[in-house]
Amino acid sequence: MGGSSFGVLFKAATFGESHGPASGCVVDGCPAGLALDIEDIRHDLARRRPGGGGPATSRSEADEPEILSGVFEGKTLGSPIAILVRNKNQRPSDYDNLKDLYRPGHADWPWEAKYGFRDHRGGGRSSARETLGRVAAGAIARVFLSSLNIEIIAWTSSAAGIDGPGPGDPSFNWDEIENNPLRMGGKAAAAQAMEKIEALRQAGDSSGCAVSCVARNLPPGLGEPVFDKLDARIAAAMLSLGAAKAVEFGAGSSAAKSQGSVLNDRPMPAPGLFPDLPGGVPSVSWKTNNAGGVLGGLSTGMDLCFTVSFKPISSILQKQETVNRQGKAAELLIQGRHDICVGPRAVPVVEAMTALVLADLILLQRCALV
Amino acid sequence: MGGSSFGVLFKAATFGESHGPASGCVVDGCPAGLALDIEDIRHDLARRRPGGGGPATSRSEADEPEILSGVFEGKTLGSPIAILVRNKNQRPSDYDNLKDLYRPGHADWPWEAKYGFRDHRGGGRSSARETLGRVAAGAIARVFLSSLNIEIIAWTSSAAGIDGPGPGDPSFNWDEIENNPLRMGGKAAAAQAMEKIEALRQAGDSSGCAVSCVARNLPPGLGEPVFDKLDARIAAAMLSLGAAKAVEFGAGSSAAKSQGSVLNDRPMPAPGLFPDLPGGVPSVSWKTNNAGGVLGGLSTGMDLCFTVSFKPISSILQKQETVNRQGKAAELLIQGRHDICVGPRAVPVVEAMTALVLADLILLQRCALV
Amino acid sequence: MGGSSFGVLFKAATFGESHGPASGCVVDGCPAGLALDIEDIRHDLARRRPGGGGPATSRSEADEPEILSGVFEGKTLGSPIAILVRNKNQRPSDYDNLKDLYRPGHADWPWEAKYGFRDHRGGGRSSARETLGRVAAGAIARVFLSSLNIEIIAWTSSAAGIDGPGPGDPSFNWDEIENNPLRMGGKAAAAQAMEKIEALRQAGDSSGCAVSCVARNLPPGLGEPVFDKLDARIAAAMLSLGAAKAVEFGAGSSAAKSQGSVLNDRPMPAPGLFPDLPGGVPSVSWKTNNAGGVLGGLSTGMDLCFTVSFKPISSILQKQETVNRQGKAAELLIQGRHDICVGPRAVPVVEAMTALVLADLILLQRCALV
Amino acid sequence: MGGSSFGVLFKAATFGESHGPASGCVVDGCPAGLALDIEDIRHDLARRRPGGGGPATSRSEADEPEILSGVFEGKTLGSPIAILVRNKNQRPSDYDNLKDLYRPGHADWPWEAKYGFRDHRGGGRSSARETLGRVAAGAIARVFLSSLNIEIIAWTSSAAGIDGPGPGDPSFNWDEIENNPLRMGGKAAAAQAMEKIEALRQAGDSSGCAVSCVARNLPPGLGEPVFDKLDARIAAAMLSLGAAKAVEFGAGSSAAKSQGSVLNDRPMPAPGLFPDLPGGVPSVSWKTNNAGGVLGGLSTGMDLCFTVSFKPISSILQKQETVNRQGKAAELLIQGRHDICVGPRAVPVVEAMTALVLADLILLQRCALV
Repeated sequence: MGGSSFGVLFKAATFGESHGPASGCVVDGCPAGLALDIEDIRHDLARRRPGGGGPATSRSEADEPEILSGVFEGKTLGSPIAILVRNKNQRPSDYDNLKDLYRPGHADWPWEAKYGFRDHRGGGRSSARETLGRVAAGAIARVFLSSLNIEIIAWTSSAAGIDGPGPGDPSFNWDEIENNPLRMGGKAAAAQAMEKIEALRQAGDSSGCAVSCVARNLPPGLGEPVFDKLDARIAAAMLSLGAAKAVEFGAGSSAAKSQGSVLNDRPMPAPGLFPDLPGGVPSVSWKTNNAGGVLGGLSTGMDLCFTVSFKPISSILQKQETVNRQGKAAELLIQGRHDICVGPRAVPVVEAMTALVLADLILLQRCALV
Repeated sequence: MGGSSFGVLFKAATFGESHGPASGCVVDGCPAGLALDIEDIRHDLARRRPGGGGPATSRSEADEPEILSGVFEGKTLGSPIAILVRNKNQRPSDYDNLKDLYRPGHADWPWEAKYGFRDHRGGGRSSARETLGRVAAGAIARVFLSSLNIEIIAWTSSAAGIDGPGPGDPSFNWDEIENNPLRMGGKAAAAQAMEKIEALRQAGDSSGCAVSCVARNLPPGLGEPVFDKLDARIAAAMLSLGAAKAVEFGAGSSAAKSQGSVLNDRPMPAPGLFPDLPGGVPSVSWKTNNAGGVLGGLSTGMDLCFTVSFKPISSILQKQETVNRQGKAAELLIQGRHDICVGPRAVPVVEAMTALVLADLILLQRCALV
Repeated sequence: MGGSSFGVLFKAATFGESHGPASGCVVDGCPAGLALDIEDIRHDLARRRPGGGGPATSRSEADEPEILSGVFEGKTLGSPIAILVRNKNQRPSDYDNLKDLYRPGHADWPWEAKYGFRDHRGGGRSSARETLGRVAAGAIARVFLSSLNIEIIAWTSSAAGIDGPGPGDPSFNWDEIENNPLRMGGKAAAAQAMEKIEALRQAGDSSGCAVSCVARNLPPGLGEPVFDKLDARIAAAMLSLGAAKAVEFGAGSSAAKSQGSVLNDRPMPAPGLFPDLPGGVPSVSWKTNNAGGVLGGLSTGMDLCFTVSFKPISSILQKQETVNRQGKAAELLIQGRHDICVGPRAVPVVEAMTALVLADLILLQRCALV
Repeated sequence: MGGSSFGVLFKAATFGESHGPASGCVVDGCPAGLALDIEDIRHDLARRRPGGGGPATSRSEADEPEILSGVFEGKTLGSPIAILVRNKNQRPSDYDNLKDLYRPGHADWPWEAKYGFRDHRGGGRSSARETLGRVAAGAIARVFLSSLNIEIIAWTSSAAGIDGPGPGDPSFNWDEIENNPLRMGGKAAAAQAMEKIEALRQAGDSSGCAVSCVARNLPPGLGEPVFDKLDARIAAAMLSLGAAKAVEFGAGSSAAKSQGSVLNDRPMPAPGLFPDLPGGVPSVSWKTNNAGGVLGGLSTGMDLCFTVSFKPISSILQKQETVNRQGKAAELLIQGRHDICVGPRAVPVVEAMTALVLADLILLQRCALV
């Protein structure tokens, strides 16, 4: 119970079922005095919104946010910031045929096994629409982080079996990300992946994908040993996303096949890089970043880098075998509006969750020293 | 701050620096009336202990636990259970030469960047010895889970580049795990990997590895949407381990390259399998377990399956370039006792952290229904 | 930061400034399957609402609640329940003259000393309107408790210097409470106190008061030693109310002047009173209830009884000396709508907070035993 | 479950049964770099220790603390600080006759009603010895607060029906507190009360008392609206103490009988008093301190003042009627070592809990502003 609350100091509580009256969040713990504009929230919600073409569902909603509290004359008050978004485009009757069937790959049955019944309309609370509250909360965290010059950028690094380029690759372009419907970092890879996705759409099938994320300008030492380490908190945030199946930091799972002599990141003198370290600790930079910016659960001053793998959308438009509410074998044919690949819409959600984790750890870091 | 506390209801607070007086834990929230014997804790601590030969350090300590509170006449009282283990085999002078050097791949520098100074003796709090408190706490969780028939087994699934067999593979044998120094599930693979590890030892190098884990007989519905999902909590627990770089559930990162038609786990009628589901929800089993036993963050009734990738031990015995406390380039030659591959000693730690997560979620599950 | 979240399992996050767009709450952790009707919430909000005549402000708002999430077909889903109430009757210009003045007895200056600025309109977050979210959340807790037959009743036990009767006194009548504008338990005392209050109103002054509360049918053993004891949790809940200055349980502060031979509550055999005690523990009742229903922080099975003392409303209509934003001595004359005595409106708030504490402890109690 | 953990950032977990092997605490969240000496802890433990004559039990233990972790070269590391105290003077056989009897006024029966059984030796976890862990943890908090110039002093303000003087009274003397066995602030009152206590001891009876506490030099704005207000947190801390029945701030329950025109504390210009207020907020002092140093749950810059009322020790040496484990009426005659009045030993515990609350709020305050 109570699993919809996130964070220790920068806290977000989200709410909303896919086809209920509204979705949103309450952010409790945002420091006072932060300039916050509704446009900051609207922008990220728009990026999360379906209907942009490409691999996403055609359900289109304005997702217009309203700030209900916590902001006065354009600045945060230190009190809870509630954000409300009405669910406008509900077509619950689309889901009538799913009422008594458990969709393969979905949480339908586990949810009922836990709670005894469920809101079957579009997945209820376990719908992708649930991420709306996360993105609204994350947008506030992001404004806070921006005030500290911290930047978070995610992109689709793999879709429909096509691996896109990453930072450092010649075909990678930061500006490309928001320019193609898959939010990949390379034009050609995106086009190739879109072709494959179109074929999957024709076949009523869906595709897995990976989303990579970089956070820049983190102060060193971020993270709270031994359980609330930076990577532990990010990992929890990422695996809390609907279709996430794996998270990897830096060299990731390939580290399991490597040697210390190859993988060890080595510090190099970097006088003045971090001018405010406590106790006269000297600045360093690192020759490599195999660690993905985190050692011993603490940020190293390098970019935080990680990748999340998502399974294919479970709602495919092919006939599937399942079980009905009476416990009998049954056939299911899903209809309605569904994404084919979660990648592009997951990008702002991955960023939002990263922002929530980092904002929380930034505040916790304030308590590290006497 | 305060990152050494874990869990919402079944809470563990661990303490101890590698070469300080003692290590241990306080478990607050273990239900009353559980039969708990010191032998339960001693057993898992012995499995975590170095010195068993193979790829582990030769530092050998009895790690004798003492129960300080919370148990009366062999049963838990409902009050906090404190476990104490004295650190007996300290040789802090081994570390004198590391005092002013930041070891590559270690948390030395990030720790100082956060706290201004550090206990340099064996890594202090960021030593692998820190896991002792986790294992002691996890042993208690495990006794609780055993009373519910829940079983957790981990093994080294890959070491020194050699992938061992997994459940279902003909060469896999559950009984083999505790019979070879790597805790792999197959004799031949273990022998092969040990050979490679021996070569690495000669070279003063170290090896990455992967540890896989299965938890059986979980009740369906375990996990708390949307942030405290089963996989989110496990992911946090695993990435909180020193050298962990990735965690994957079920099909893991390969899901990113798959299609819904292939990957969707389909429910099948299974009358009577889960007799106590609320609201008359029918029992199901699943044709496949690509999800690794978790859908929408809730357990499905199938085995929970995940794999953690660990980077190679950072303490290699080769000369390395680094930076000293004065911020100057320096050379480092690590000596002393060090594991080469974290795998076999990580196995009981992975189990312990899994037990702590599951015990917590089992208690939270008690609050799901009116 | 983050102080607007309450509870461990049955969690309430409230939001809203007095003259912002809306107030409300998100309840995260209400068990699934509870029949919940908007009327349950509306009823308690109406009791909290000003404008009922008597000692309360004449600001009158419909305070119409809307359930935004967490309820499906009349039953709680197990997901967060968000409640929204629009602030309709804002007259922020009433407060223009207070913008640069710190009101005596109010949080104006401490709030600015913490956050650097404040929403001066009606006290912003530190307005009595803040309790609206508490009452909405408490109403849900109350429905949950009702399903367990637990009943909570509060009343004004003292106002304007007049002590009203309490349970056991001949002039006390449970049905009288909601029948007089002060919510006192005796008609005569209420009339007498109203007279005094009218005189205070004429003088532009205000009055302190006390509110007493009883919770019945609590299971024994409720409370979590040693910090989350029943009385500790209630005490925190009560002192979190705007004008509360004291809380007393059972004999309260008079216990400090008593002897053990007088005050010790003695158990008496009461076979069958609590049929489901664990471990074959026998039922008892108690000869007296000087403890107010709590021993060692655990409920005894007797009524939980406590009294909260409230200071007089700080917004008096007399000229007062203070300091302005420039740090200079200044005169203040408060105008607008203000309660004279917080008693009657505090009654539903005391009940709501009690309900939130008890709902949380009821859930925690589910984890006491293996 | 899990009620033995206290605090959000400056966290204390305590453990230990009265006659188990040991008592102690783990403090997780103490900032790094604090000079901490074992003597700091020993000093407060000695003040808590029984056997000093006067109204306390004659059970005398050295209560020698050991720091197990978290301190290196005399400074806190930022990692958990575990403190261990062996229980040396156990005489569990003293309690054999209580095994099957529920002591009036004690938690014996409620504890069994919750957990099914109990450690009957000296009250087990619900013994006054439980406060040892609190005092050890509080001693650390106190060192932290001292580094900020914050001072906490408590004294017995009433005992055996004799009200002692308070600050401002001519007969009150800060230095007197630690000079008389009751820890009262006036010599004459202490002597008078001791006489009454001696009479109670002769009669096998016990006495209630009150302890008052002042905390000085708090920064303004301390406390987290709306649930973690300064007074709410203190109230919870105080009512978590074994025999506490009431807590009052400033004017306390007498505020209920007062008027706003009398009770309102008025700010006065005080240029430079608090030089670092955010947003250019001017310094103020207050003409009176009826609020006890807290308005709207935030510290005002005046002394925090509160009083806790304790019931008489429940273990009286007179024959009492009760119930036995078989549910039958029975007679009880308590023997052994027991305090007569909790006052003097409660003084360091009240201070310790106050320190824990303030240390936590000081850290939380660091997150108030961008």
